[in-house]
Amino acid sequence: MLAFFSMIPLGTGVSFSSKVADSIRVIEESGLDYKMTAMGTIIEGDWDEVSGVIGKCFEAMRKHSERVSCTIKIDDHAGRRGRLSGKIASVEDKLGHEVKK
Amino acid sequence: MLAFFSMIPLGTGVSFSSKVADSIRVIEESGLDYKMTAMGTIIEGDWDEVSGVIGKCFEAMRKHSERVSCTIKIDDHAGRRGRLSGKIASVEDKLGHEVKK
Amino acid sequence: MLAFFSMIPLGTGVSFSSKVADSIRVIEESGLDYKMTAMGTIIEGDWDEVSGVIGKCFEAMRKHSERVSCTIKIDDHAGRRGRLSGKIASVEDKLGHEVKK
Amino acid sequence: MLAFFSMIPLGTGVSFSSKVADSIRVIEESGLDYKMTAMGTIIEGDWDEVSGVIGKCFEAMRKHSERVSCTIKIDDHAGRRGRLSGKIASVEDKLGHEVKK
Repeated sequence: MLAFFSMIPLGTGVSFSSKVADSIRVIEESGLDYKMTAMGTIIEGDWDEVSGVIGKCFEAMRKHSERVSCTIKIDDHAGRRGRLSGKIASVEDKLGHEVKK
Repeated sequence: MLAFFSMIPLGTGVSFSSKVADSIRVIEESGLDYKMTAMGTIIEGDWDEVSGVIGKCFEAMRKHSERVSCTIKIDDHAGRRGRLSGKIASVEDKLGHEVKK
Repeated sequence: MLAFFSMIPLGTGVSFSSKVADSIRVIEESGLDYKMTAMGTIIEGDWDEVSGVIGKCFEAMRKHSERVSCTIKIDDHAGRRGRLSGKIASVEDKLGHEVKK
Repeated sequence: MLAFFSMIPLGTGVSFSSKVADSIRVIEESGLDYKMTAMGTIIEGDWDEVSGVIGKCFEAMRKHSERVSCTIKIDDHAGRRGRLSGKIASVEDKLGHEVKK
């Protein structure tokens, strides 16, 4: 599955790139394939892997705030892998041109 | 934490209340406190409990479709419990009247 | 369509029920049918109505913070109305018992 | 503001890259800056621009299905622009290395 997720530590000001950096470190250490976007990070794995990484990101965020908000969107397609780039390529194929990515 | 989540089995038509019913059964069997809304179900527990229930709901949904879409929103407030009704009561207190719920 | 949405004013502490109350006032003044949940509020209307209300809620939230985070989930079913209660009733019918709501 | 959004036309099978391509065309015609990701597309604009584009994408999706599901996540930071690449650069600066993007 692909899982897009974004976490916000509340009450810590309006800028938190250093806290997001902590989550990226957790993701990089997990070994799962990922892509960071301006609105959240997408990781690829099965539910145990994905929920394990998200759980560790919660632990990292809780060090910065007692309240953490998180949005997750999952696309679970049985048996598919390599979809971080494959899904975009499929749309580009239909469009007949490259998209901004 | 409170976790709002909604799952859609794709390619199975435009009505899937019977599939949603399967998820509600999983949630009821978990013993976690929950509330169903018109747009998803909210459960209360820690991340292990919440991710465990969502994982079982994925398994139930995969029986209906090879592709499942899921949206999750989490509000993790350290040490707080009973927030399924407490958060609404707090807003009603500020408003000075009951809301539609 | 049904639209579930939740807004968070960032950098204003970890409690913001009084700010959420402002959004509820905007929704009540809109005249749209709604239900508040512990994780967000669901409103029913067409896209112009829904996006108009959400726009006004952004304006209300910006008075509290320069940065506002918002999650929206939409279920647009052509020609359907009265779905705030209808969708839950349909699942209860499949289950054969009432759910917690 | 930055708006991440993803639309799914229900009941049209488990593959819909050609329908997503229709939305990308709407976004490209809008002139707003955007980035496509494997889980949705991020556009930058004010709420009128963003909600206008999303409204047109709903119209495009309704041609494929009577029921459309949509998830939107918004980060509204007053007065900021150029955040499609700026937010990632800020995290890379904190990490001291480039991320996968």
